[in-house]
Amino acid sequence: MLGVCYYPEHWPESRWSVDAHRMRELGLTHVRIGEFAWSRLEPSRDRFTFDWLDRAIDVLHKAGLKIVLGTPTATPPKWLIDAHPDILPYDEQGHVRGFGSRRHYSFSSGTWWRESARIVEIVARRYGDHPGVVGWQTDNEYGCHSTTVSWGPEDRRAFRQWLRRRYQTPERLNEAWGAVFWSMEVNSFDEVELPNQAVTEVNPAARLDFQRFCSDQVAAYDRMQVDILRAHAPGRFITHNFMGFITDFDHFQVGANLDFASWDSYPIGFVERFPFTDAERALWAETSHPDIAPFHHDLYRGVGHGRFWVMEQQPGPVNWAPWNPVPKPGMVRLWTWEALAHGADVVSYFRWRQAPFAQEQMHAGLNLPGLDEWSVGGREAGQTADELAALGPLPDTCRSPVALVYDYATAWTTAIQPQGKDFCYEELVLRWYEAVRRLGLDIDVVPPGASLAGYALVLVPSLIHVTPAALTAFATATAPVLYGPRTGSRDDTFRIPDTLPPGPLAGLTGNRVTQVASLRPGLAVPVEGTVSGTAIRWREHLTTTGTVLARFADGDPAFTATNGHHCLAAWPDEALLSAVMHHMAGVAGLPVVDLPAHVRLRRRGDLTFAFNYGTEDWLVPTQGTLLLGSNLLKPQEVSIWR
Amino acid sequence: MLGVCYYPEHWPESRWSVDAHRMRELGLTHVRIGEFAWSRLEPSRDRFTFDWLDRAIDVLHKAGLKIVLGTPTATPPKWLIDAHPDILPYDEQGHVRGFGSRRHYSFSSGTWWRESARIVEIVARRYGDHPGVVGWQTDNEYGCHSTTVSWGPEDRRAFRQWLRRRYQTPERLNEAWGAVFWSMEVNSFDEVELPNQAVTEVNPAARLDFQRFCSDQVAAYDRMQVDILRAHAPGRFITHNFMGFITDFDHFQVGANLDFASWDSYPIGFVERFPFTDAERALWAETSHPDIAPFHHDLYRGVGHGRFWVMEQQPGPVNWAPWNPVPKPGMVRLWTWEALAHGADVVSYFRWRQAPFAQEQMHAGLNLPGLDEWSVGGREAGQTADELAALGPLPDTCRSPVALVYDYATAWTTAIQPQGKDFCYEELVLRWYEAVRRLGLDIDVVPPGASLAGYALVLVPSLIHVTPAALTAFATATAPVLYGPRTGSRDDTFRIPDTLPPGPLAGLTGNRVTQVASLRPGLAVPVEGTVSGTAIRWREHLTTTGTVLARFADGDPAFTATNGHHCLAAWPDEALLSAVMHHMAGVAGLPVVDLPAHVRLRRRGDLTFAFNYGTEDWLVPTQGTLLLGSNLLKPQEVSIWR
Amino acid sequence: MLGVCYYPEHWPESRWSVDAHRMRELGLTHVRIGEFAWSRLEPSRDRFTFDWLDRAIDVLHKAGLKIVLGTPTATPPKWLIDAHPDILPYDEQGHVRGFGSRRHYSFSSGTWWRESARIVEIVARRYGDHPGVVGWQTDNEYGCHSTTVSWGPEDRRAFRQWLRRRYQTPERLNEAWGAVFWSMEVNSFDEVELPNQAVTEVNPAARLDFQRFCSDQVAAYDRMQVDILRAHAPGRFITHNFMGFITDFDHFQVGANLDFASWDSYPIGFVERFPFTDAERALWAETSHPDIAPFHHDLYRGVGHGRFWVMEQQPGPVNWAPWNPVPKPGMVRLWTWEALAHGADVVSYFRWRQAPFAQEQMHAGLNLPGLDEWSVGGREAGQTADELAALGPLPDTCRSPVALVYDYATAWTTAIQPQGKDFCYEELVLRWYEAVRRLGLDIDVVPPGASLAGYALVLVPSLIHVTPAALTAFATATAPVLYGPRTGSRDDTFRIPDTLPPGPLAGLTGNRVTQVASLRPGLAVPVEGTVSGTAIRWREHLTTTGTVLARFADGDPAFTATNGHHCLAAWPDEALLSAVMHHMAGVAGLPVVDLPAHVRLRRRGDLTFAFNYGTEDWLVPTQGTLLLGSNLLKPQEVSIWR
Repeated sequence: MLGVCYYPEHWPESRWSVDAHRMRELGLTHVRIGEFAWSRLEPSRDRFTFDWLDRAIDVLHKAGLKIVLGTPTATPPKWLIDAHPDILPYDEQGHVRGFGSRRHYSFSSGTWWRESARIVEIVARRYGDHPGVVGWQTDNEYGCHSTTVSWGPEDRRAFRQWLRRRYQTPERLNEAWGAVFWSMEVNSFDEVELPNQAVTEVNPAARLDFQRFCSDQVAAYDRMQVDILRAHAPGRFITHNFMGFITDFDHFQVGANLDFASWDSYPIGFVERFPFTDAERALWAETSHPDIAPFHHDLYRGVGHGRFWVMEQQPGPVNWAPWNPVPKPGMVRLWTWEALAHGADVVSYFRWRQAPFAQEQMHAGLNLPGLDEWSVGGREAGQTADELAALGPLPDTCRSPVALVYDYATAWTTAIQPQGKDFCYEELVLRWYEAVRRLGLDIDVVPPGASLAGYALVLVPSLIHVTPAALTAFATATAPVLYGPRTGSRDDTFRIPDTLPPGPLAGLTGNRVTQVASLRPGLAVPVEGTVSGTAIRWREHLTTTGTVLARFADGDPAFTATNGHHCLAAWPDEALLSAVMHHMAGVAGLPVVDLPAHVRLRRRGDLTFAFNYGTEDWLVPTQGTLLLGSNLLKPQEVSIWR
Repeated sequence: MLGVCYYPEHWPESRWSVDAHRMRELGLTHVRIGEFAWSRLEPSRDRFTFDWLDRAIDVLHKAGLKIVLGTPTATPPKWLIDAHPDILPYDEQGHVRGFGSRRHYSFSSGTWWRESARIVEIVARRYGDHPGVVGWQTDNEYGCHSTTVSWGPEDRRAFRQWLRRRYQTPERLNEAWGAVFWSMEVNSFDEVELPNQAVTEVNPAARLDFQRFCSDQVAAYDRMQVDILRAHAPGRFITHNFMGFITDFDHFQVGANLDFASWDSYPIGFVERFPFTDAERALWAETSHPDIAPFHHDLYRGVGHGRFWVMEQQPGPVNWAPWNPVPKPGMVRLWTWEALAHGADVVSYFRWRQAPFAQEQMHAGLNLPGLDEWSVGGREAGQTADELAALGPLPDTCRSPVALVYDYATAWTTAIQPQGKDFCYEELVLRWYEAVRRLGLDIDVVPPGASLAGYALVLVPSLIHVTPAALTAFATATAPVLYGPRTGSRDDTFRIPDTLPPGPLAGLTGNRVTQVASLRPGLAVPVEGTVSGTAIRWREHLTTTGTVLARFADGDPAFTATNGHHCLAAWPDEALLSAVMHHMAGVAGLPVVDLPAHVRLRRRGDLTFAFNYGTEDWLVPTQGTLLLGSNLLKPQEVSIWR
Repeated sequence: MLGVCYYPEHWPESRWSVDAHRMRELGLTHVRIGEFAWSRLEPSRDRFTFDWLDRAIDVLHKAGLKIVLGTPTATPPKWLIDAHPDILPYDEQGHVRGFGSRRHYSFSSGTWWRESARIVEIVARRYGDHPGVVGWQTDNEYGCHSTTVSWGPEDRRAFRQWLRRRYQTPERLNEAWGAVFWSMEVNSFDEVELPNQAVTEVNPAARLDFQRFCSDQVAAYDRMQVDILRAHAPGRFITHNFMGFITDFDHFQVGANLDFASWDSYPIGFVERFPFTDAERALWAETSHPDIAPFHHDLYRGVGHGRFWVMEQQPGPVNWAPWNPVPKPGMVRLWTWEALAHGADVVSYFRWRQAPFAQEQMHAGLNLPGLDEWSVGGREAGQTADELAALGPLPDTCRSPVALVYDYATAWTTAIQPQGKDFCYEELVLRWYEAVRRLGLDIDVVPPGASLAGYALVLVPSLIHVTPAALTAFATATAPVLYGPRTGSRDDTFRIPDTLPPGPLAGLTGNRVTQVASLRPGLAVPVEGTVSGTAIRWREHLTTTGTVLARFADGDPAFTATNGHHCLAAWPDEALLSAVMHHMAGVAGLPVVDLPAHVRLRRRGDLTFAFNYGTEDWLVPTQGTLLLGSNLLKPQEVSIWR
């Protein structure tokens, strides 16, 4: 199903009805509203002006649209900030991050929790049982604009409380952090400072605890909103719209609060955000890279317990990337079908109509700025809606053959201690994901500790700390498992394990890592054996009791196997990565299709989808029944067959 | 005529007379003094020590020099700052910008206005009718070192007043800014914050208003000084020495206060400041690019109502660029003749003698550091003075065939919302200017709304907001007009026009822009037709009722014409830009000369000047009477013919 | 002799004895302890817990190890900072640099001097006459993490005092700084601000005085510690462990307090810190550049009055560079022998055992993390100890044939006023050093003003201010002297000399510099004559009464000589630099060996050492008696012969 994000407060009331009917006409079924409207709902303290929203909801509902209502906490109004400046967040240099845009609050402000609970309850009580409101969105894009972490007095206060709960005594804190180093021991929790503004590098265990604390604060804040909504909006679903490439809180943890996950998909903008090469950025500038959105679909399907929406789908050029090209014709349709192929229940475009004013005036909508006239994206949305209607209900999404274990704590840990400037966990994960999808395989993204039963192949690009639950899952996996560099290299308190890395995995893998090297650009180590290629960026020196499948040029093991537990002791270049994934697919008994860089496949139930991101045709290798498109998959085209 | 900047306070009184006579001997007629001397005029509150300046002025006057006296407000002394720290400006991060160099004041400080008026009046009363003081310079280089904008409490106070005057009610402010977006509405002007230190992007209309406010403050402050000077210095001219490549206040607006404009010409230093490629920077490192100084001459002739001076002319290597090479022999003379060719009344070198101490000790003068001995630049100044004397009075400057519409507000708007990281208005303008001068054509730089009568060709590289006055000027122009990208894309409140871009120009051009794309390096779109080349950086998608002169590769219009109103819907590469300018010159009926990259022509009255910036000779294509130089224009040489 | 850095406080007491015996077993004789242990010695105000350190010292002493005890002032504990936040330093933007790592103190805090004196005296009284404690280290790595300079209120107060002592009256300060420029004159010392946070460039004489003040503060602080230690630890040596590539205080000045110098040698990490090209960084990533550590050995031998230790020797990969590769096998041994060849008395590895926790957990030790098991570096240290024992006592270090004059004030001056963005004094010095060592010559690094008697060749890469003592040394030198660019270009108050550069050297050199040019990348000036090559980055225009040995392309002198006083008026490229050094060696009558880029020689007494940093063998050109290694010097190998 398709939906759209709509801001009735941006347009004269006389246009609402026209808009609602054109939404239906286009084939949309859902509409999200309200998440930035606080100043229109409560223009000053306790003066409430909900009447316009009542009418807007009625107009949309009467037109047959299902409404998702956002809590308005992403934009506390000026009168509230002026009355309670302790709401504001602080940056790492200790400056207040002020009013003037959005997300200007600290998750640790006590005032902010009270004010959030107050407005959420008021909104929830008013619309909780409205028949048109089928679900709720908490806040908007937690963590966007680096707002997970704040460095102010309220944050310090809350962090000290969190530490007190975690460690009970200063002695245990000192022990956990190894605070004897550089005389950093404290005599009380009130002596603990936030890990910023020190003369040089701060204790990594302290930084990790601060990151855990910040992540916990997001989850607890979300839980507070969810609890209020559940109390007053019975039977309605609750979701949150996550942002891609935001890793500074644990999305699985917030996902546990929700009925399902949703996310905001801006495939082209993300091309500039991910550390692609300039050549890749130019290549994918007008289509996005073929794994950027899919990876997130698979991630949020995992965060959402198997269900997800795209709450905001890019419908044309956006405004916030360093460059903002126009998507190639067909891409808005392609992205929509792709989200559905990965299991999306609803794809909701952002936004209905381009706003001619304010910060996002250069962000396309389904309609041209200020007008009742379809944009290119609007026309493609309509075409997709028609095709979707013709196709009928989509089958359920099945378990994928491949599980990729994704761990937010590993993102934090490697950012705190990269050891090599270009060791970027998100990049490693996406490169592994890309290599597997180039083999035509579908992937589920799962958190560490989740059951791995039923998968044919398990990939662990890196997992710094292997928890007991994760160890159990690996030990009981029947599929072959591939562990990447740095796996098992730290314990729960950021210590190197007593047995050296891979710590708890020593038994399963037979390995022991005695040294690691980060390799600057220009340094590379050839790897030869069952697989071959080159190690770049990172290389481990290890001994193994297992089988050595490939060796570095100096003879040391590079790729090992012990009873199905495989270790890759390097950051692989493209050739080595591809060879390793081919090898693992062979071990797993998975048939593969070697796809060109610009084509991807994806199954949903008994349907197979193919997508062409490139400039050359691709011959679909199927004997199945084509339901959409043709066997000759043209650029920016979609084919679906059963 | 030639002049020099002189600091009697830097040298023992015994040397003043020697200096004055050597100035005359060199052929100089004017001397500027006094603009940094506050601590020597009033070393502590109300203790005045003007006697030395009295004597210095007398010595210079008696030697036959005409004196330009600067008000000393660019350098408030320490005792004043200590007594009134509210004078100090703030940077965008909220830090005070302290004492220790110059321009350490905010244009919005109430104290500062009172103190400025006080010292200006004292100086003006003392020297207003001195026969040797022929004119005045207000302050020094407004805006230099990013001092137009300040972000402190005094600035916030004044900005709120400015908004109150502009909008009367908070409701109108909210409406103008589209403040409903992200709940940014205010209930009173006292709730408005400066547009800095927000969590993410700030409202662009707010930023534009803040920029307008800052620009207005500069003009009003200058006006305050001008009013005092006019009251006490009857019959003397008043000017200000602007700096090139400073666009954060409207120079035309300040120019309106003045009798004529002057500017400080540092051609080599600017090579590092303008976004040239590294290859261009190496090519022009020792001569400057041949359009850098000329563009500014033409700009300030426009700012100065047809008259301008070079108040500070680079006489050798300077101290403030990342690299400071020695100009090639001949360049000081070349730059001087070039300024005169573009209409300068006086070219005044900065400075008489290199100071062996303090911040600018590596800045060359006409004399070597601390010595009575000509530098290379001093010798070239003397040669130029001799040649100038031989040539006799220069004819008046005539109207040029080409008008280039230059708009400070477009510089602000595109900086606030670049949409593509490399969309730089100043760069676009200079590239258009360069392309036209490569055809041997002279250019007048005019503000939007100025009459375009009498021009053969009008160029509008970009003009984001087309005011009614500008529209009238375009509509009544008899010459062909060429509009560049983004023209007409916003209204007065930074909104996209209801009719889409080009807004008010829709009628004249027949165009309607539905989408725009910014193109990262590596993306480019071929253009073919009457002209051909490549679109880079920016491309518009438009429909037209006019003639399509060239199309993008996908068939969309790239270059259109309707009754002489031409639109270029792209940022052109060098080939496309050159082709378009050739085409426009043809339409305008202007004969052109294809000049090599290193040669430029310029007329003043019935004289034609040629300048060679390069390393190869150039054969002057003239049958006229040579007054200076030869028909074979050698590197770094000047030829003048009638 | 060999030693190690050890942290008994990091390990259970039960392991101390095992560690001590394994140290002896490896062949170590010295152990440094205690420099970061304050929180374990005084966990809260006046609660002292020295018993553990008593026992640790006894265990080490009884095992036969000689102990170097560090004063614990590099890591003031949290309780002290909370009680006295005025101890904390400030960064240049005015932010407090807080607790959380180390070196969180300002050298100008009055409280901090009292507290430092207190703890140093307590420690010195307790262990001053312990028979196991043979020497002391003051603090740890002064200046590391940019901690020489602090910008807080305590610093401003102390700077004003320092200025009052230096200048007596504000008038003399104003005169010395040329403060008339830009009206910067002060009426009292209390009006002086720190030279930060001004609107633009600050007075360079003020900046130089501030740098001198900061350097003096370090030396005075160190002297305070030294005086206490001398009073309570009779007969024990006192040293400090300097860090390489830290130039913001005068190491010779601190060295004057000490019995000898020591330094912390991290050859690989420094490859990323020095401005090498990317190609050089890749080439030397796993070995270091062959002159990085040697230059510092020679420097600290000079700082230490002919004696030095390596107090911390890199034993494997470290944690703090952008990339941290594993050293090639053999490099830990090579670096150790190389330090000894350059005259080190003791080479002490950092650290005994890799810590599995806290900031430096990725820093290798002689033992694997947390284990009693040799790392690669541990094994190489053992091999070296065995070889050293076999070789017997090393001869004394002799005077080298070449003296290189190194001047911290020139580093400050050129950083304050680079004039060309890539004029980096440290780089110039290292390139000269490299060029001479490529000729097989040994070098002593000496401060300006030191006697140059007995040297065959004197090199002065640059010496901005030539003091009377330096002038005397040059004038009385019997060896040829080579002066590099900018020598003699400023006087004591940062003024250009009245006679123009080279100021006091005008007489000796016959030269007069009238202009200088800094050259951006892409600009270069050919040089031809007795030597040939290219000038890059910097070029001087001079006249000379001496012999012109080579000229720039325009005919101006580039390389001159007058009675043995040679001047190179440029930053030379590699070819020109090599040619000049060959020429100078010829003039000096020094026989040279042209070494490949990866090989270096060094003599100690009658021994000659050869080191191979590269990937190709090198045939040792000797008829002497081989004591270690072979005539075919293999990669990463060492040969020693008599």
